[in-house]
Amino acid sequence: MGNTFGHLFRITTFGESHGGGVGVVIDGCPPQLEISAAEIQFELDRRRPGQSKITTPRKETDTCEILSGVFQGKTLGTPIAILVRNQDTRPQDYNDMATKYRPSHADATYDAKYGIRNWQGGGRSSARETIGRVAAGAIAKKILAQVAGVEIIGYVKRIKDLEGEIDPATVTLEQVESNIVRCPDTAIAAQMIALIEQIGREGDSLGGVVECVARKVPKGLGSPVFDKLEADLAKGVMSLPASKGFEIGSGFAGTLLTGKEHNDEFYIDKTGNIRTATNQSGGIQGGIANGEDIIIRVAFKPTATIRKEQRTVTSTGEETVLAAKGRHDPCVLPRAVPMVEAMVALVLCDHLLRHQGQCGALKIN
Amino acid sequence: MGNTFGHLFRITTFGESHGGGVGVVIDGCPPQLEISAAEIQFELDRRRPGQSKITTPRKETDTCEILSGVFQGKTLGTPIAILVRNQDTRPQDYNDMATKYRPSHADATYDAKYGIRNWQGGGRSSARETIGRVAAGAIAKKILAQVAGVEIIGYVKRIKDLEGEIDPATVTLEQVESNIVRCPDTAIAAQMIALIEQIGREGDSLGGVVECVARKVPKGLGSPVFDKLEADLAKGVMSLPASKGFEIGSGFAGTLLTGKEHNDEFYIDKTGNIRTATNQSGGIQGGIANGEDIIIRVAFKPTATIRKEQRTVTSTGEETVLAAKGRHDPCVLPRAVPMVEAMVALVLCDHLLRHQGQCGALKIN
Amino acid sequence: MGNTFGHLFRITTFGESHGGGVGVVIDGCPPQLEISAAEIQFELDRRRPGQSKITTPRKETDTCEILSGVFQGKTLGTPIAILVRNQDTRPQDYNDMATKYRPSHADATYDAKYGIRNWQGGGRSSARETIGRVAAGAIAKKILAQVAGVEIIGYVKRIKDLEGEIDPATVTLEQVESNIVRCPDTAIAAQMIALIEQIGREGDSLGGVVECVARKVPKGLGSPVFDKLEADLAKGVMSLPASKGFEIGSGFAGTLLTGKEHNDEFYIDKTGNIRTATNQSGGIQGGIANGEDIIIRVAFKPTATIRKEQRTVTSTGEETVLAAKGRHDPCVLPRAVPMVEAMVALVLCDHLLRHQGQCGALKIN
Amino acid sequence: MGNTFGHLFRITTFGESHGGGVGVVIDGCPPQLEISAAEIQFELDRRRPGQSKITTPRKETDTCEILSGVFQGKTLGTPIAILVRNQDTRPQDYNDMATKYRPSHADATYDAKYGIRNWQGGGRSSARETIGRVAAGAIAKKILAQVAGVEIIGYVKRIKDLEGEIDPATVTLEQVESNIVRCPDTAIAAQMIALIEQIGREGDSLGGVVECVARKVPKGLGSPVFDKLEADLAKGVMSLPASKGFEIGSGFAGTLLTGKEHNDEFYIDKTGNIRTATNQSGGIQGGIANGEDIIIRVAFKPTATIRKEQRTVTSTGEETVLAAKGRHDPCVLPRAVPMVEAMVALVLCDHLLRHQGQCGALKIN
Repeated sequence: MGNTFGHLFRITTFGESHGGGVGVVIDGCPPQLEISAAEIQFELDRRRPGQSKITTPRKETDTCEILSGVFQGKTLGTPIAILVRNQDTRPQDYNDMATKYRPSHADATYDAKYGIRNWQGGGRSSARETIGRVAAGAIAKKILAQVAGVEIIGYVKRIKDLEGEIDPATVTLEQVESNIVRCPDTAIAAQMIALIEQIGREGDSLGGVVECVARKVPKGLGSPVFDKLEADLAKGVMSLPASKGFEIGSGFAGTLLTGKEHNDEFYIDKTGNIRTATNQSGGIQGGIANGEDIIIRVAFKPTATIRKEQRTVTSTGEETVLAAKGRHDPCVLPRAVPMVEAMVALVLCDHLLRHQGQCGALKIN
Repeated sequence: MGNTFGHLFRITTFGESHGGGVGVVIDGCPPQLEISAAEIQFELDRRRPGQSKITTPRKETDTCEILSGVFQGKTLGTPIAILVRNQDTRPQDYNDMATKYRPSHADATYDAKYGIRNWQGGGRSSARETIGRVAAGAIAKKILAQVAGVEIIGYVKRIKDLEGEIDPATVTLEQVESNIVRCPDTAIAAQMIALIEQIGREGDSLGGVVECVARKVPKGLGSPVFDKLEADLAKGVMSLPASKGFEIGSGFAGTLLTGKEHNDEFYIDKTGNIRTATNQSGGIQGGIANGEDIIIRVAFKPTATIRKEQRTVTSTGEETVLAAKGRHDPCVLPRAVPMVEAMVALVLCDHLLRHQGQCGALKIN
Repeated sequence: MGNTFGHLFRITTFGESHGGGVGVVIDGCPPQLEISAAEIQFELDRRRPGQSKITTPRKETDTCEILSGVFQGKTLGTPIAILVRNQDTRPQDYNDMATKYRPSHADATYDAKYGIRNWQGGGRSSARETIGRVAAGAIAKKILAQVAGVEIIGYVKRIKDLEGEIDPATVTLEQVESNIVRCPDTAIAAQMIALIEQIGREGDSLGGVVECVARKVPKGLGSPVFDKLEADLAKGVMSLPASKGFEIGSGFAGTLLTGKEHNDEFYIDKTGNIRTATNQSGGIQGGIANGEDIIIRVAFKPTATIRKEQRTVTSTGEETVLAAKGRHDPCVLPRAVPMVEAMVALVLCDHLLRHQGQCGALKIN
Repeated sequence: MGNTFGHLFRITTFGESHGGGVGVVIDGCPPQLEISAAEIQFELDRRRPGQSKITTPRKETDTCEILSGVFQGKTLGTPIAILVRNQDTRPQDYNDMATKYRPSHADATYDAKYGIRNWQGGGRSSARETIGRVAAGAIAKKILAQVAGVEIIGYVKRIKDLEGEIDPATVTLEQVESNIVRCPDTAIAAQMIALIEQIGREGDSLGGVVECVARKVPKGLGSPVFDKLEADLAKGVMSLPASKGFEIGSGFAGTLLTGKEHNDEFYIDKTGNIRTATNQSGGIQGGIANGEDIIIRVAFKPTATIRKEQRTVTSTGEETVLAAKGRHDPCVLPRAVPMVEAMVALVLCDHLLRHQGQCGALKIN
C-alpha cells in the first residue's frame, strides 16, 4: 500500500527502471476537466533524462500514453491511467550491481526487505519512478490553476554552497526554464552549471536545495491534526529519491529568533482581507493555509551512484570495491524541480477536494 | 479523516484544550501485550504542563483512563481507548481571544477553514492534543522494545543558538531526564534553562531543535515509494504543533558534501552483518531501514503565544493589538521531546506490522 | 484498522460490553452543524437494552457524553468523541463462558484470532459495540436531512415467517415506533410480539429481516467501481452483529425475472426530472444513486446466545454442554432497526461528502 | 478513491470498455512469489467474452501484459501492473446510446454524477472493468494456495428457477469447467444452457445465483468490527456489475429457524481441532473465519442491455424507445463465476496479510 498517495485525489504509481514501463493511475480526478497528453508531456519533458549536458545521457523520450479516464479531451471522473514505456535500457551496464551494493543506494535495503530486487538499474528505487508523480502532478496543477489560479513554481535555490537570490513572490516559470540548471538567478546559475560539469567529469556528484512556492492557495486547505498541510507536504517531498530535509517558511533558521521576532503580525489590506505583515509561517498556520505564499525548501543529497571507486560489499557478504558504470546525473537538482512541484501540486489538489468535501457539503443547497 | 495516523497500527485522536477531555483510540494493536496505565502515565508525565519552572504553570495531572481494549493487564487486539479529562481550564483568560487572532497561531486559519472555533484556549490546535499521541506512543514503544529491542530517545539538541554535544549512539533516557530542559549536555542545559527563564520573564519565547535517535530498528522497515520510512517520519513530526523543519541523517548540511564524501561505504562486521562505515543516511536508504541508528532532527519555532504586545486583527476585520494572557510555555522544546519520540514510535510500529504483513505472510507455514 | 468506517465522514468505534465504556470518534464532520446530546440520545434510546418486554432486561440508560468536537451547540469540524459508560454489568453471569464457547457466537473465533478475549459478556463482539455506530448515525442523519431532506426509515419486515406489508414509499418513523417490535404493519406486529415472548420463555431465539428505505437521496452518490453505493451499504450492514444476508431492490427474487421484466424503464416526470417507472434497481444503478428510493433488506439470524442446552467445547479442548445464563434478546430485530438505519446514514453521508469533494471541486469558483 | 480495494493486498483498477485498455495495479504483494502471465491468463480466459455460444460474441483475447513488479518469474514486492488492450471495439454500435439511456444500466447515473460519460459501450461501468479484478485475483489465489492450501471454487447455482445440486465441500474446478454454463450439476447445466440460448434468441436476458466456497481458510482471518470477513466479502461481490444480493451460510433462509436449530454446535475432531457439527455460519463467526468452509451466494440480475424494445429517455430529457444493438451476454452468470472467485480471493488474501501484520508481529522473535 506504500505506492498510493493522497485520499480524494489519489495516485498509485508503478514501474521499475527496467521492464515494461512506468506509470500512474489517478483516482478521484474531478470530471469534465480539459486535459491533453501534450500538457502532461510538457512536465515530463522537464523531468526526462538527456534534456541537457548536465543530466544523465540516458535517451528516453518518456512519451506518455493516456490509457483511460479521458474521453474527447475531457476527464471522465474515472481512473486516469498513464503509461510511459522504458526504451533505452542497458541492463549490461549493471552486471556488477547484480551482486555489488552501491553505497548509499537502495540496493542493500531492497534486498533486506524483499529478499529480491531488480538489479538492472535502480529498479523501483530509480528516479524513473517519479514519472508517474510528475504526470499526475500536471493534472493536479491544472485543477488548482483553474479553480483558484494557484501557481506552483520550483527552482534550484542552492547547489553545494552556490546559493541563488530569488524572490518567491515574483519568480516565473520562464525565469526557471531560462537555463538548464533551473536557477532563476542567472549569474549563480552559470556557476552552478560549471560546477556540475566539473564534478561530473571527476566522476563525483553534488547536492543542494530546491525551493518551491505555491501562490494564491485558497485559505482553509489542510486537515489537522495529522494531515496538516505542512505535514503532507513534508511527506510528499521526503518520499522523493535523495531528499534528506524539509523546511517550511522560516524553517531551521527561524529557531534562532524569539517569538516576538518570529510571529507574523496581522493587518487588514485594502480589500479588507486579513493578511500577515511577514511570512515566517510560510503560508501555513496551525496546519491550514492562510492565503500567503506557501514556501518550502527540500534538501537533496549528492547522487549516490558515482564513478569513483568506493568500498562496498556483495549480496553474498564479501567486501569488495565498486566504480559504477551506467549513466547517472552528477546532480539531481535540475530534474528534481518538476518532481517537487508535482508533489506540492498533488498535496494541494488532494486537500482542495478534501476541504470541499468536508466544509463545502453543508452549503450544497 | 485528518485525525487518524498509521495504517495497521492506527491511532485516532480527539479533544480540545477546553471541553470534556482529550484522548486516543488505538486500532490494530497486537494482542496479548502486557500494558498498564502506569506505563502510559510515565510518558504523559514527561509531556504534561506544570512539570517544571520552565513550562506553563497550567495544573493538569493528565491522569489517563484506559476505557477499552485491555483485559487483565493485556491487550485484547481490539481498539484501545484512552481518555484524559481536562481539569484546570480558565476560559476567562481567553476572552480577548474570542475575537482577537493571536499572530502565528491557528486562530485565524481555523476560522477561515471551519467558520467556527473553540476560542477557550487553543481548542483543537492546542498542544494538549498531543496527549493522545504520547499515550499511543507509549504502547508503540513497548511493542518495538519487546519485538526487537528498539530504543527511541529524543532530547533537546539546541535552544536558540545554544547547542549541546550529544552522541546519539550512546545517549540514555536517564541522561535526558537528568535536567528539566531535557538536554543531556548538562553544561549547555544549565545555560538553556537560564535563557528560557529570562525570556519567559520578558514575556517572549524561544525555539530550537529536538534530535531523536531510534536504535536497533530492524532492517527492512519502510514501504517505498510514498511510505518511505523517512517520509512517514517527516509527516509524523511535521504534524506536531510548532514544527517548521525536518532532517534525516546529514540533512541540509549533507548537501554541502560531494557524493564521494557523503556516501556511506559498506563493510562486513565481525558477526557477518552488513554495516555502513558512516551514517550520513541516518539509518534509512531508499526509504527502508538499514539497521543503523535512525537519526532525525526537528525544528520547533518559538511559541506563538507571548505576553508582549503585538499588532493583530479581530475576527470581524478590525486592526487592534493583543498582549496574551493565559499560561504558556516560553519554550516548547522540553515538552516536545516525548512528542517527537511518540511520533517516531508510532511510525516505526506501524511499519513493523506492515512489513510483517507483506513480507512475513509467505513464511507463515 | 478494522474499527474505522468511512472515508471523509469517518467513524472509529471502541469498547467492550464490560469495561470502562463504549463509544465513537467521528472525524470529518462538517462544521457548524447544530447538534445536541439529546438528538443523539433519541437514537440511542431506540437501541438500548431494557426498552421493552421483548428485549434483554439488562438495565443500561446508555447516556451519552459528548467529549469533544462540539462547542456552544455546534460542530467544530474537529473530531467528535462520544462516550457511553457501561453500568449494569454482571460478569459473574459469564463465569461459564470464560472457558465454554457459545455455539455460533464469537467466543471461539476471537480466541483463535487473538489468543485472548474478554469473556465477561460478548466483549467486543457484543451488540453493545453498535452504540458508537448509532450515535454517529444520528449525526449523519441530521446532515443528510439538512442538506437534501433525506429520510432514512428502517423497520422489521419479517420475524421468522411472519411478514408485514409495508410501503417503503410512505412509511413513517411514527408508524415504526408505534409498537415495540418496530413493524409498521400493526396486525402482524402483534403476532410477532407474541411469538417473540413465547420463544423467549422457551429459552430459544428468533431471526428475521429488517427492511430500510432512504428517500430523497441526491442523484450521483456512489463511487464506482469498488465503492459502489450498494457495495458500501452491503459492507455496512453485513458488519452488524448477526447479519447473514443483504439485498438491494429486487434482490434474490429479481433473479427469477427476465431482463425485459426486470429493467426499470425511464420516463420524464412533470417537473422534467428523469424517473424510473419501476424500482427493481432499489434506487441505485451502476453503483450510483438515481434519485429513486433506496431500498435494502438485511437478514438477521436468531440470537446465538440461548438458555437451551447445547453441545459445545471448552477453550482447553474438551467437549461439554452449555445452557447460557446472562440476559439476552430472544430476537435482535427490534433493536437492529436503528442499527441498520445508522449504517445506511453513515454510508450515505460519507458518499455525500465524497461526491461533493470530487464532483463539486471544479465548481468552487 | 473508489477504484481501490483492499488494505495490505491492495488493487487499483482502471480502464473503460473502449479506449486504450483496462488493467490493474496490485500493491503490497508479498515478494518472491513465483507467478507467470500464463497463470493470470488462465483466469482471464474464464472471464473473457466470446468463450462460448452463450456469451457475447465480442472477440477479445484479453491477452495480459505484466508491466512491472515481476522479475525473472518472481514478484519483487513492488507494484504489479497488468494491462489488457481493448481490441474488438465497435463504437458505432453505440451511437444510439450516446443520447439514449439504457434502462437499468449505468448510463443515466454516470451522467448524473459526472456530467460526462464514455458512451462507446459501457465505459467504466462495463463488465470489462472486471479484467483487473480477475487478474489480481489469480495472484491472490496463488498466495492463499501456497500459504494455506486455500481452495476457492465458484459455480452457477441457479439460472432463473433452474437450480443445481452441488456439494460445496467436494466440488472441483474440473467439474465447474466441464460445461460452458459453469454449473457442476450437469443435468441442470444442460437445461440452463438451452434456456440461455432461447432467451438470447428472443433478445431478452436472464439472471441467477452464483455460489462460491473457500475451503481451508485459516482460522482467525477477519478484522471486526467493520472489516468483518463477511462484510468485506459482501462489499467485494456487491461491487461486481449486476449483483443484487449477498448471503453467507444460511443467509435469508436461516431466518426461518430458531436459535437452537440454527446454532452450529462445537465438537473436537480426531486431530483435536475444534470444529462445528453444522455450518449455518458459513465458515465465519463474529466476523472471523472459524476454519470451516466459507460459503457465499451472490444474486445477479438479468443483463440490463437487451435487444427488446424498451421505453427510455434521452440525455436531453425527451422520452423515446430503445432496442439495443451491440453484443451482450444474454446471461452474465457463467462469466461471473471467475469474478466472484476473484473478489473472494482478494478479500481473503488482504485479510491474510492483515492478520499476519497485527497478530503475527509479536511473534517475530
